[in-house]
Amino acid sequence: MTAEFAARHRSVSHIPSDPGRPYFIEKGMGDRAHLFGDLFTVYAGGEQTENTFNFFTAEGPRGGIIPAHSHPDTYEVFYIADGAVRLFVEDTGGEQYEKLLTAGDFGFVPKNCPHAYRIERHHSRIVGVAAGPGGTFERFFENLGTPTEELGLPQRPFVPEPQKFGSVPQQYDVRFLPDHQWRTRG
Amino acid sequence: MTAEFAARHRSVSHIPSDPGRPYFIEKGMGDRAHLFGDLFTVYAGGEQTENTFNFFTAEGPRGGIIPAHSHPDTYEVFYIADGAVRLFVEDTGGEQYEKLLTAGDFGFVPKNCPHAYRIERHHSRIVGVAAGPGGTFERFFENLGTPTEELGLPQRPFVPEPQKFGSVPQQYDVRFLPDHQWRTRG
Repeated sequence: MTAEFAARHRSVSHIPSDPGRPYFIEKGMGDRAHLFGDLFTVYAGGEQTENTFNFFTAEGPRGGIIPAHSHPDTYEVFYIADGAVRLFVEDTGGEQYEKLLTAGDFGFVPKNCPHAYRIERHHSRIVGVAAGPGGTFERFFENLGTPTEELGLPQRPFVPEPQKFGSVPQQYDVRFLPDHQWRTRG
Repeated sequence: MTAEFAARHRSVSHIPSDPGRPYFIEKGMGDRAHLFGDLFTVYAGGEQTENTFNFFTAEGPRGGIIPAHSHPDTYEVFYIADGAVRLFVEDTGGEQYEKLLTAGDFGFVPKNCPHAYRIERHHSRIVGVAAGPGGTFERFFENLGTPTEELGLPQRPFVPEPQKFGSVPQQYDVRFLPDHQWRTRG
């Protein structure tokens, strides 16, 4: 049973709109979005779990560090399914940590902790779960970015219209920290 | 920062007892438990996420199907990190589905849906998230089974004392369904 469903978020989705229904999604076939150079794929969201948790993957090119940000009300898991990713986290006391995570390794970012990551090998894949008492934010990626039916990384980076940064992140519990500095070795 | 912490659940854990603290856990080094022939490894639980979600892995030998069960108040994700796993699910209307999942594939089991799985390749690894409005149940495995410091699958199956089946499953929102039949091809 790998079915396709008309969906709230896109014309075709493998996530059934009836939240009580079991489903399967093959690799890469979740609800996809492009944001800058990255591909985000949602396999389950708050609508499926009475707003308790979500499940998505993040992929991007080897390269630069993503913008530092935090989530006032959201805990986040970084589990490396493939490749290598360097995770940067600051605790609420200001102490900074970084760790190179490879396949099977795990990182946990509590709410309010500034964090970022840098993909250190091509074809890396991060599994993410991001949720808290206030709900889940998996539709952030397609709202700041753009939904796509394509498979794979964006052919060219999708750059959001500047005014979207004033409204979309807050709506999904994301706070960008443009002046943040990582003092770890990096 | 891969530290070790004294923990509520075992003498040594890589999960810090302070829930606001970021942490990293290398592959296989989460809180481990043996139950029958399987190894369960918890990387995050309700104590870390204000009871919204958990994150664990399940590994076992290629072989038999696990006992059919359901969770009255818990949604569950099956994401295959390695190998191949056949997932069996019945919806609340009694319709049954099965699907062979391989690395990168995803299955979703809503609350109240009977389910089971069979590991179809050695060294398979399932990533699980299991949570609902009532909380999370990641300590089920070590309470019906037994905590372990060992790495890898149990040398011999850990069989729980029979009386534990009368109390532990209910406590962790697990209902075993001993008379359940899978009518799918299997």
